[in-house]
Amino acid sequence: MRARAVLRVLAALQLIVSCFLILPIVVALLYHEYHMAFSFLLPMGLVWLTCVPILLFNRRANGATISSKAGYLVVTSGWLLAAAVGALPFVLSGSIPSFTDAFFETMSGFTTTGASILASPQSLPMSILFWRSLTHWLGGMGIVVLTVAVFPLLGMGGLQLVKAEVPGPTVDKIAPTITQTAKMLWLIYILMTVAEIILLMFGGMDLFDASTHTFGTVATGGFSPRNASVGAYNSPYIDAVITVFMMLAGMNFLLYYRLVIGDIRTVMRNSELRAYVAIFVLATLFIAISLDGHTYPTFAESLRYASFQAASILTTTGFTTADYSTWPALAQVVLFVLMFIGGCSGSTGGGMKVGRIIILLKQGLTEMKYLIHARGIFSMRMSGVGLRKDIVYSVSGFVALYMFMLFLTTVVVATGGYDIATSVSAALATLGNIGPGFGIVGPASNYGSMPDYIKWYLSFAMLVGRLEIYTVLVLLTRTFWRR
Amino acid sequence: MRARAVLRVLAALQLIVSCFLILPIVVALLYHEYHMAFSFLLPMGLVWLTCVPILLFNRRANGATISSKAGYLVVTSGWLLAAAVGALPFVLSGSIPSFTDAFFETMSGFTTTGASILASPQSLPMSILFWRSLTHWLGGMGIVVLTVAVFPLLGMGGLQLVKAEVPGPTVDKIAPTITQTAKMLWLIYILMTVAEIILLMFGGMDLFDASTHTFGTVATGGFSPRNASVGAYNSPYIDAVITVFMMLAGMNFLLYYRLVIGDIRTVMRNSELRAYVAIFVLATLFIAISLDGHTYPTFAESLRYASFQAASILTTTGFTTADYSTWPALAQVVLFVLMFIGGCSGSTGGGMKVGRIIILLKQGLTEMKYLIHARGIFSMRMSGVGLRKDIVYSVSGFVALYMFMLFLTTVVVATGGYDIATSVSAALATLGNIGPGFGIVGPASNYGSMPDYIKWYLSFAMLVGRLEIYTVLVLLTRTFWRR
Repeated sequence: MRARAVLRVLAALQLIVSCFLILPIVVALLYHEYHMAFSFLLPMGLVWLTCVPILLFNRRANGATISSKAGYLVVTSGWLLAAAVGALPFVLSGSIPSFTDAFFETMSGFTTTGASILASPQSLPMSILFWRSLTHWLGGMGIVVLTVAVFPLLGMGGLQLVKAEVPGPTVDKIAPTITQTAKMLWLIYILMTVAEIILLMFGGMDLFDASTHTFGTVATGGFSPRNASVGAYNSPYIDAVITVFMMLAGMNFLLYYRLVIGDIRTVMRNSELRAYVAIFVLATLFIAISLDGHTYPTFAESLRYASFQAASILTTTGFTTADYSTWPALAQVVLFVLMFIGGCSGSTGGGMKVGRIIILLKQGLTEMKYLIHARGIFSMRMSGVGLRKDIVYSVSGFVALYMFMLFLTTVVVATGGYDIATSVSAALATLGNIGPGFGIVGPASNYGSMPDYIKWYLSFAMLVGRLEIYTVLVLLTRTFWRR
Repeated sequence: MRARAVLRVLAALQLIVSCFLILPIVVALLYHEYHMAFSFLLPMGLVWLTCVPILLFNRRANGATISSKAGYLVVTSGWLLAAAVGALPFVLSGSIPSFTDAFFETMSGFTTTGASILASPQSLPMSILFWRSLTHWLGGMGIVVLTVAVFPLLGMGGLQLVKAEVPGPTVDKIAPTITQTAKMLWLIYILMTVAEIILLMFGGMDLFDASTHTFGTVATGGFSPRNASVGAYNSPYIDAVITVFMMLAGMNFLLYYRLVIGDIRTVMRNSELRAYVAIFVLATLFIAISLDGHTYPTFAESLRYASFQAASILTTTGFTTADYSTWPALAQVVLFVLMFIGGCSGSTGGGMKVGRIIILLKQGLTEMKYLIHARGIFSMRMSGVGLRKDIVYSVSGFVALYMFMLFLTTVVVATGGYDIATSVSAALATLGNIGPGFGIVGPASNYGSMPDYIKWYLSFAMLVGRLEIYTVLVLLTRTFWRR
């Protein structure tokens, strides 16, 4: 590991993120929250005062290759630092006095979890709420991907870094260089953001509400400046727009590139996308049938609430339009099962991801074929192409560690005296970057009342989930630190 | 598939099982329940009248090879038939008037689940209670293994049949022929049974109570003739004996053979056994600490109840000495997590099995090593020997299908209007052959109030779990029925 190269990348990362602190300052000025400006300027100044010298005095490291090993360290510590710096405005402004709470909220933002410790976000300054939602947007497509896109001078290490931030089973390069790929991904992401903001403003939202909710949607984050989340607007149009964009954000972004270059065939035969849509439709129907006649007067209305919540949980966004913890048991159980799934690989969604689940189920079906014809030869195909066996290995290892982390997190939460539904769903909601769960962490409640050690542990779990397990856990192995 | 050979094996299977109906008749005579004899004699006569002719008229099929394909069909339908015939005494005696309930109870018995529809087993005739516990004992080591052991004339098909009934990752032959292996396994099982009966009688139980509870223990079943399960005796000695024997029954039986031939080294270095004991100790400590000072006056007493319940759930037995659903949250959550694990492979315990979980976690750790050193060569070892990669495939396929069945079962239960804790734990408790769960299916309650369609579905889930997923699910694939 070259310490200088590592330091350089870390500095670049913090500089990029800190630039975005300018936006809440603008919001503060627009909404006459002049006293708030300082809370954003101070962390920004702090970052610039330390990081600019680091970049200047390490210019010789320019272009130095970053090993995959260093990549994991840089990305994990980069995210931790970003969350620590990003938490400062909350503390300095007095919006969230406890650093533990502010760190939890910021980590929840960057990791697009959307789990909150706030009982009433509505009562916070606009600039703070804007920054809170902006952390979603930055973390959604990834701060490393962003840094690689705008800082090509990071050199050869870009691919290793992006792989550590987006380690899913499909890290295809869509452009010749990783810098171009990163630019392409962010461009699609920005276009999607602009489109949703405009559509939400058509529905009567002002620019502030439209942009904060859009950040929460396209990043599959889930923070809302309103106490009642998206339910506050009680508008079928807004529900529909957000439902559609949550589903779009949960799709593999590489498929958008395929669409742009006219390769519709690849998109249509994508197994993961088809399963993702099928799961959404099936879950919506189950929930709507369960709600029908009990909770909402018409089936159309049941469908509206069912589709919103199914999309929100499946894509790991976490917005709510209803307190689903009061819904009939079947609707709740379907949402609970969706919590195990997650979005598509290469999307901004979290969870285990639809693609991984398909690969393992296909493996199970293939095993059954071998049981019937021991000497047969069965190839596994996905999206029309053969599935390499080493991907099955990687995926089964991932799922095993994911389940292990899930149980560990459940037990840690339970040490606080929380019941099964709360403990399990809090574990799912943080590790899967969903946000709300059931019980004490249900949609009408928040994580604020939990003891500090659980908040710190869950902040860690959110990061482990966002960086897809391996990137963080690898740092905890002996092999990593040997020599 | 040779229809005659299949028919012949099925007939042999039913004949063997029906022979055991003599035992409850003896119990009926001893306890002066003369009117009960008929309820056992009729099903027995029925089986003999149909199966003896089948055996006689198909003698030419003697020694015919049974394909692995036919094996799955024979074993699955053999178990279904055994449960149907075994349910008759309950219905005929009026103890359980509904056939649905009786079938559920019998399937729960044979699969060693121990999930009951009875609110008060205590009020049933002794002979019926004896038969109920005896189904555990027969299903524990396996009715096919038993048939192969006593019916060597089944010919070449034995190995295929046993593989379909005991399909775990370790079907080693400990003896030169499968008949000898089956005999060896049953011999160990019988010795263990006798030892526990004697030890329980030392603790003041009569022969009836000692044998029924022993059947429930060594088979990791969980049916108790007492309403309060093992808690009815309130004896630290009895709790200790049953805790130890539950743990012994959850061990790989092949290791006992190793012990007998003096190969202690193999036993000591068995990774699965070590993890199994470690999980038990850790879970016991967590539960005891959680109980201490709240539920029981002394730590020793907390340890007593904690170790019993941890062993009961981990080994998938399902006996209870306390209503753990009233325990502190942490204790409940630890038990809930244990429900996902199960006993050792090659034991009478159900669940995913400790061995499978170790294999997948090792796979996850190996993946991390490759992430650090992409060109490294890392071999996986288990119990000191190399782990073949195809075992990882098979295990990951198994776990995927297991989780799929778990979610499917959860949703099916939820359609009855049951909450998350009830639905998930009922799925875990039936598919994992545990018995009691949480909520409506908690230790102080039973499955009796569930609608019939859920009882039938759960009977199916218990069988899928007992035959370790593949054997039953393979029959539902198109590949199986092609040609």
